[in-house]
Amino acid sequence: MKVLAIESFGAFLGRKGDRIVIKKKKEKLAEIPAGNIDLIKLSVRGVSASMDAIYLALKYNIPIVLTNKNGKPLGVVLPFTYRGLVNVRKRQFEAQDSPIGVKIAKALVYAKIANQAQLIYVLARTWKKLSSDSKAALMGARNSMLDYLKKLDKIRGESCEEVREQLMSIEARAAQHYWHAFSRLTPKELEFHERVKKGACDVVNVMLNYGYAILATDVWLSILKAGLDPWAGFLHANSQRRPGMVYDLMEPFRAPIVDKTILHLVSLKKGNLQSYLQDCRLTPEGRSLVAEAVIERLRNQIRSGGRRLTFSDIILLHARRIALRLANKRPYYKPFLWKG
Amino acid sequence: MKVLAIESFGAFLGRKGDRIVIKKKKEKLAEIPAGNIDLIKLSVRGVSASMDAIYLALKYNIPIVLTNKNGKPLGVVLPFTYRGLVNVRKRQFEAQDSPIGVKIAKALVYAKIANQAQLIYVLARTWKKLSSDSKAALMGARNSMLDYLKKLDKIRGESCEEVREQLMSIEARAAQHYWHAFSRLTPKELEFHERVKKGACDVVNVMLNYGYAILATDVWLSILKAGLDPWAGFLHANSQRRPGMVYDLMEPFRAPIVDKTILHLVSLKKGNLQSYLQDCRLTPEGRSLVAEAVIERLRNQIRSGGRRLTFSDIILLHARRIALRLANKRPYYKPFLWKG
Repeated sequence: MKVLAIESFGAFLGRKGDRIVIKKKKEKLAEIPAGNIDLIKLSVRGVSASMDAIYLALKYNIPIVLTNKNGKPLGVVLPFTYRGLVNVRKRQFEAQDSPIGVKIAKALVYAKIANQAQLIYVLARTWKKLSSDSKAALMGARNSMLDYLKKLDKIRGESCEEVREQLMSIEARAAQHYWHAFSRLTPKELEFHERVKKGACDVVNVMLNYGYAILATDVWLSILKAGLDPWAGFLHANSQRRPGMVYDLMEPFRAPIVDKTILHLVSLKKGNLQSYLQDCRLTPEGRSLVAEAVIERLRNQIRSGGRRLTFSDIILLHARRIALRLANKRPYYKPFLWKG
Repeated sequence: MKVLAIESFGAFLGRKGDRIVIKKKKEKLAEIPAGNIDLIKLSVRGVSASMDAIYLALKYNIPIVLTNKNGKPLGVVLPFTYRGLVNVRKRQFEAQDSPIGVKIAKALVYAKIANQAQLIYVLARTWKKLSSDSKAALMGARNSMLDYLKKLDKIRGESCEEVREQLMSIEARAAQHYWHAFSRLTPKELEFHERVKKGACDVVNVMLNYGYAILATDVWLSILKAGLDPWAGFLHANSQRRPGMVYDLMEPFRAPIVDKTILHLVSLKKGNLQSYLQDCRLTPEGRSLVAEAVIERLRNQIRSGGRRLTFSDIILLHARRIALRLANKRPYYKPFLWKG
C-alpha cells in the first residue's frame, strides 16, 4: 500500500491534471500520479488542500484520512457514491446470530493467541542477553498459550452472544501468560507489570495504547473498503462506544505489528524510554517515535501465501475475505497466522 | 439548518480558534463561530481549506460535503469516531424481513402519493390561467391518486420483498395520474409528455433529475446523522447501484421540494427554459438555476407540528424517527404529510 502522508507545517496539497502536487511556500516538493497512491494522510496542523485535489483522490477511490500530527486518525473523506456492499452488511448482522459469526470470532481469537505465542517463541530464540531461566519461562508461557488454542477448538454455539463470554475468558487467560512473558523482556525500571488499557501510566502500556490506535486506522479503512460495517463485530458486542468489527479484525495483528514494534523500541532505548512519558502521557517526541515505528512496520513487506505483501495489504485482504465468507462466496474464513 | 456554502473560485476556508474564517486573496470575507453552522458545502472547483478548519468542523460534528460548483454532492468528510448506532442498523436489516419494514415502506409510499396529490390540489387552485377543463382534469387526477391510498391501506405482508411489487405497482399507477396532471402545467413547446428517469432529453425531466440529485444530498446526510445504513431500504431492494434507504426517505419530499420548484421555474421562464438544455444536458446556467432554486427551497421554513422548520430539518427529523421506530422507541412511524 502506497501511503502519501503530508505532515509538514505549511504544506499544500494541490492538483495538476491527474496528478497530486505537494507544495510548500510555492515550491513544488512532489508530483505524483493519482494512480500510484493508495492512501492519503493529511495532518490537521498547518496542512491545507485544494478541494480539487481531494476530488481527484475521490475519483481514484483513494481514501483520505485526516490525522493529528502523529498520524492518529481524526476523520475520513468518503466518496458520496461509495458502493456499499449492502447485502454483505445484512449478512454481517445476521451472522452475529448464527454459527458463521461464531466461527469467525473463534478464528480471530485463535489467530490472536497463536500470533502472540509466535511472537514469544521468536523472542525466546532471538532476544539478546536472555537468561536461561527467562528463556524457559517464555517457552513455558508459549506452551500454555498453545494449550488454550485446543480449548478454543471445542467451543460451539449458535450465536456470538452465546459464546462471547467463553471466548473472552480463554483470550484473557492466554493473555495473562502472554503479558507476563512480555514483561520479562522489558527492563525493570520501566515498571511494566501487566497490560493496562485505560488510565495506563507506565510508558510501555501508554505506547502500546498509542500504537493500537494507529493500527486501528488501517483496520478501519480496510473494513470500509471491504464494504463491512465497522461497528458490527462478532467477538466484540455491539456498542456505541467502540467499533466492534475494527476491534475484531485487529486482534491477530496486535502482536506482530504493534507489540513487536514497541518491544523493539524498548530494546533500543531501554530505561531511557521513560523520558518519553510526562504526566502519564507521551511527549510529542514519544508520539512521533511510536507513530513512525508502527507506520514503518505497516509498510513492511512479509511473505504471505507465496506473495510479498505489506501488513497493510494483508489487513485489507482479510477484511475482504471476511466479506466474502459472509456473502457465502467462501466455505470458511482462515485468519492471519503469522510465521514471523 | 444553517448551511455554509463556499463556491467562489479562489476562496479559502481557515480556522481561527473556534471560528471558521473565509478568505479570498487574503481578504477576510466572513468569520463564523463553528457552533452556528450545521453543514459546510465546499465546491471542488477552486476552493481550498486548511485541514485545521476541517478538524474544527469534525469536532463540532458539522458534516462537510464536497460538491461540484452547482452543489451536487461528490464526497463527504466524516469524523473517525462517528458514533454508529449499530443496533439501529441491525434492526434496519432485520426490519427488511419483518412487518416493521413493510409498514415503513407503506408509510413512505402513502406520503409520496398524498404529497403528490396535495401538490396537484394546490396547483389546481392557484395556477394562473388554468382552463376549467384543465382544472377539472387536475382534480380528477388528484381523486384517482387518493383512491390509490385506500388500495395501499389494504396491503399486508411479513417482509418487504413480499409486498415490494404491489407497493411499486400502486406507486407507479398513481404516478401516471400525477405526471399526466403535471404535464398539463408545462407549456407544449417544452415537450414534457411523461416522466423519464434515465436518458431524458427534455428540459423538464432533465431538471427534475438534477433537482432530485440535490435533494438526495440532504437525505443522505440525514440518514448518516440518524445512524442508519443508506443502502438498506424497505421500499427499494438492496442493490449496489443505489442507496435504497436514501431513495426510500426521498419519496415524500420529491413533490413538495423538487417538483414544485421546477414547476415554479417553468412558470417563470416558460418556453425559454429550453435554452438551458444542450445535447440533452443542462448548461452551466441551467444547473445553477436548478441548484439555487432547490437549495433555497430546502432552506424554506414551513410550519410542521406547531414549529417552524426548514425542509432540511424535517428530513433529518424523519430519518431520526425511522431510527427510533427501528430501535422500538416508538410504536409506529408517521411519515411527512405536506399541508402545502
